[in-house]
Amino acid sequence: MTVKINLSDKVKALNGRPWQPVEVASVNDQAVRLALFRGEYHWHNHSNEDELIFVYKGKIVVQFKDRPNVELTAGELTVIPKGVEHCPKSLEDSYVLMFEPLSLKSKGD
Amino acid sequence: MTVKINLSDKVKALNGRPWQPVEVASVNDQAVRLALFRGEYHWHNHSNEDELIFVYKGKIVVQFKDRPNVELTAGELTVIPKGVEHCPKSLEDSYVLMFEPLSLKSKGD
Repeated sequence: MTVKINLSDKVKALNGRPWQPVEVASVNDQAVRLALFRGEYHWHNHSNEDELIFVYKGKIVVQFKDRPNVELTAGELTVIPKGVEHCPKSLEDSYVLMFEPLSLKSKGD
Repeated sequence: MTVKINLSDKVKALNGRPWQPVEVASVNDQAVRLALFRGEYHWHNHSNEDELIFVYKGKIVVQFKDRPNVELTAGELTVIPKGVEHCPKSLEDSYVLMFEPLSLKSKGD
């Protein structure tokens, strides 16, 4: 049986807890996770993996130290290259999909 | 510089051409592609890779031979396991994101 996954259900499963991703799906060796972004996260980088982030609902800014910040609203995405220091901040409560290797723990290095 | 990608822009880039995916982004060894699904595709499978499909806009059904069909509307996704015969069909013009290995040509085997 092949399962249908509904993002609205995953939003409910987050139950308003920010920065605590839930697994949405895995495909090949990649994980798709959904998190509620609220306020500012912390500066971090992922040494060995690129990370794709896609804003499902809301508005965020990905802050960088070595390049211009990237502001994203619903339907927009960016890829954060491995090794690049970044700090996500939500401009309103935002639900964000992240694509990254399954091996990566979803908390940043 | 880290680039922002807007799905509405990618929808425009498709210019109404069905079943001709455009590349949205690549992350690690995976490609994210967007396609317009219109009408029925053809039966196929991918021998070595799972494929994640996410409906950005519209309504589709993924038909299977060996399991129940899966109907998906905007905000819903499924993972088609490698080797599983499937045939996507749109119930209305639909824009669909696909996540699959970069090595896979977007036309099915």
